[in-house]
Amino acid sequence: MTVPVLLVRDDREYLVEPGEEMGTDLGVLEVPDDVEPGATLETHLGNEFQVRRLRGPDLFHHFERTGAPMVPRDIGLVIGETGISRGDRVLDTGTGTGVLSALMARAGASVVSYERDPEFADVARENMKLGGVADAVDVRTGDLTEEVDSLEPSSFDVLTLDTGDAPSVVAHAPELLVDGGYVAVYSPFIESTREVVETAREVDLSNVWTRETIQREMQFDDRGTRPSTAPVGHTGYLTIARNE
Amino acid sequence: MTVPVLLVRDDREYLVEPGEEMGTDLGVLEVPDDVEPGATLETHLGNEFQVRRLRGPDLFHHFERTGAPMVPRDIGLVIGETGISRGDRVLDTGTGTGVLSALMARAGASVVSYERDPEFADVARENMKLGGVADAVDVRTGDLTEEVDSLEPSSFDVLTLDTGDAPSVVAHAPELLVDGGYVAVYSPFIESTREVVETAREVDLSNVWTRETIQREMQFDDRGTRPSTAPVGHTGYLTIARNE
Amino acid sequence: MTVPVLLVRDDREYLVEPGEEMGTDLGVLEVPDDVEPGATLETHLGNEFQVRRLRGPDLFHHFERTGAPMVPRDIGLVIGETGISRGDRVLDTGTGTGVLSALMARAGASVVSYERDPEFADVARENMKLGGVADAVDVRTGDLTEEVDSLEPSSFDVLTLDTGDAPSVVAHAPELLVDGGYVAVYSPFIESTREVVETAREVDLSNVWTRETIQREMQFDDRGTRPSTAPVGHTGYLTIARNE
Amino acid sequence: MTVPVLLVRDDREYLVEPGEEMGTDLGVLEVPDDVEPGATLETHLGNEFQVRRLRGPDLFHHFERTGAPMVPRDIGLVIGETGISRGDRVLDTGTGTGVLSALMARAGASVVSYERDPEFADVARENMKLGGVADAVDVRTGDLTEEVDSLEPSSFDVLTLDTGDAPSVVAHAPELLVDGGYVAVYSPFIESTREVVETAREVDLSNVWTRETIQREMQFDDRGTRPSTAPVGHTGYLTIARNE
Repeated sequence: MTVPVLLVRDDREYLVEPGEEMGTDLGVLEVPDDVEPGATLETHLGNEFQVRRLRGPDLFHHFERTGAPMVPRDIGLVIGETGISRGDRVLDTGTGTGVLSALMARAGASVVSYERDPEFADVARENMKLGGVADAVDVRTGDLTEEVDSLEPSSFDVLTLDTGDAPSVVAHAPELLVDGGYVAVYSPFIESTREVVETAREVDLSNVWTRETIQREMQFDDRGTRPSTAPVGHTGYLTIARNE
Repeated sequence: MTVPVLLVRDDREYLVEPGEEMGTDLGVLEVPDDVEPGATLETHLGNEFQVRRLRGPDLFHHFERTGAPMVPRDIGLVIGETGISRGDRVLDTGTGTGVLSALMARAGASVVSYERDPEFADVARENMKLGGVADAVDVRTGDLTEEVDSLEPSSFDVLTLDTGDAPSVVAHAPELLVDGGYVAVYSPFIESTREVVETAREVDLSNVWTRETIQREMQFDDRGTRPSTAPVGHTGYLTIARNE
Repeated sequence: MTVPVLLVRDDREYLVEPGEEMGTDLGVLEVPDDVEPGATLETHLGNEFQVRRLRGPDLFHHFERTGAPMVPRDIGLVIGETGISRGDRVLDTGTGTGVLSALMARAGASVVSYERDPEFADVARENMKLGGVADAVDVRTGDLTEEVDSLEPSSFDVLTLDTGDAPSVVAHAPELLVDGGYVAVYSPFIESTREVVETAREVDLSNVWTRETIQREMQFDDRGTRPSTAPVGHTGYLTIARNE
Repeated sequence: MTVPVLLVRDDREYLVEPGEEMGTDLGVLEVPDDVEPGATLETHLGNEFQVRRLRGPDLFHHFERTGAPMVPRDIGLVIGETGISRGDRVLDTGTGTGVLSALMARAGASVVSYERDPEFADVARENMKLGGVADAVDVRTGDLTEEVDSLEPSSFDVLTLDTGDAPSVVAHAPELLVDGGYVAVYSPFIESTREVVETAREVDLSNVWTRETIQREMQFDDRGTRPSTAPVGHTGYLTIARNE
């Protein structure tokens, strides 16, 4: 599979695949099949663009959104707390815009991700192509809670859940996960978080904890240093549990 | 390179390499060369251990420590905000225990990491072997600030700095990083954070920001739900900047 | 009524009333009826003590405790958000150790405070004497929810509730409070807080809001400045509403 | 001195003195000299207004502003941590809009407050009349740091400082304060906070601490409960120290 690259010039930024032809207001760009990051490309009107490797945070700007995507911070917390890495098999729901799936794939995981809304699933599949991870993320249209029985037991290393019916999936975590596997659940509301925690305890997952993350941006100016008064953005309670 | 696995039985947990022989108080374990996660091994006394894939968070228990390692949360924030992924070339200092290097390697990066203390560097190299990432992490004994000129320009995608002299490395970020590369700096103190931010601005890095992260653990019991009064653990201010 | 004073010498500190005789390990102190803060008293053995006015935060050390008293921060938030001042008539439950009642009285309010436990109520009454506010705080043994009908309508400026059955008192707030009066409720758990908020909305109180307060202690030392990692102490959710 | 009252009808609210005549778009109100909270007044056009006691939080709407006034939360923290009460003599700078001074006066303190800007001082004096505390708050035009030597030693129970040159006043706290008196300083920036703390330590004040306060507003709706994403508003670092 070809790996997409970014073409950047001042405020213009395009995500393209090698071999593609890209029309811009500064002229047409022919992207060679063997284009390399660090190279310079010229449009037919002689305007230069820099070729850049795609990085995870760039996906937030280039993916088509079907809702508010999970922020880089929260994706990082999921990756850090579950140790997502090469060779991991991840079961995810709901896909949404797909940034979590894409970033886990970019860290080496293969991901099966369920999205109930067929149009959202189509957008997510396009996003996986854009992100160069279509071969590593299998976006399935459907409701994971109904498909749970059809999945092979002990075939996943990590479950990542960002959906209202997370508790009913958590109930199946011990069958779905390998020994030592992790569950990570984002829940915006405290009541649903409580249900997740209670279910995790009932099915004997271990090391169950829930954290809320608050961030303060610091402001450094001539008068001094202080926390910004900007919104700190609650995105949800993160619950982690382990199958052991 | 062989990939280490975990052998687990109740509270006992050993990190071993395939082919290794492991003495335990429950008898000797012979670990086959082709051992697979999910298998069961028996000691010569007939006691069973489960074979488990090593996950990132396990490294915190098995690595020898030469200081307080960065916590999973903070490693996750670095990975999420910079988009660490397969193919990344990362320049890191100071190595310390090496969990950040190991976890970035597990997400597909190749890492060059500088550690000033020769004994700490030796321990870190042993830790990389333990973590199965010795081929992906090059722990170099030395002071990065003195080696900066010997490194190839534009040869790194990400710089990760967790050391007191971070500002002097940040000053070289534009030469060391590719176009679009990231700098991530952990600084425990606000004064050194300010120096980092000022240096990043002086050398024209873009999107420079600093955040403090506060986490609250939630407690769910029969009486109700509330935040825990446990310490929330300041580990440092995280500054991110981009080379563009 | 006489006003108690503090007698202080190094780590020794006694709360005494003018005219009292106080035995200490450094000799007996005779406290004159007209003792004034700023004076120096001598024991019969010739050891000097400084006379100091009693301040609100001193009550935390001198009151006998029948449970964890509300902390100065939370008392301050109640006083600040409801504007406790001279002439206020406050209805409070449950009294507990009585520091909230005592500090509101010291700010000029007259307080009726209900405590269900007869022994706790006795201790609270002794504490009010110790704090020099026995004439301003009427500690009543009993359950406010059963006494609500016997209280004169519109006879309180502020209701302060720190008890599990707060919602049933909040339901009566519109009758008990004057026009423009405030309700302030401390609830440790989110579920009971929600009940308080829903009740306040049902009985048409206005400007209903709930806040959680997080504090970070800053550490200033030779290496630099950073937030302390000490516990931040969740003491409860504060809900404020107004009768208008 | 007469005590002002509020006249309230739906969204209309007037702060008036007994004996005053008040023109409104609903007709003229004659406020009797002996007006009592709880009464109903009628304009000459027959429209009714309720008479209400003035409460502290009302001052934020009725005071003329000469800058952002301290918020009720922070005023409450100062009052709670220093124990402001009847009989206290408080030295304050800079006055600004004057809500801190007014609310301390309403809690029974007599306040001397310095304001450098003569126009701001005039506005503050008018605000004190509006708030019914002109007899308890002495707003002085001038720079406290230049007046410190002219003030009587040991004549204040509490110093409240909300001004850039707080450290130079803190340096004189041991002379100005009685034994056991408190200093409370609000500083927006960490650098100036550090200066305050270092000065407090140098002049041997005790129990010096600094806290940052973060508040989260909780949202209760049909879907569940969660923290609001609204700004949490850093207003400053609060430093408290005691003269002992």
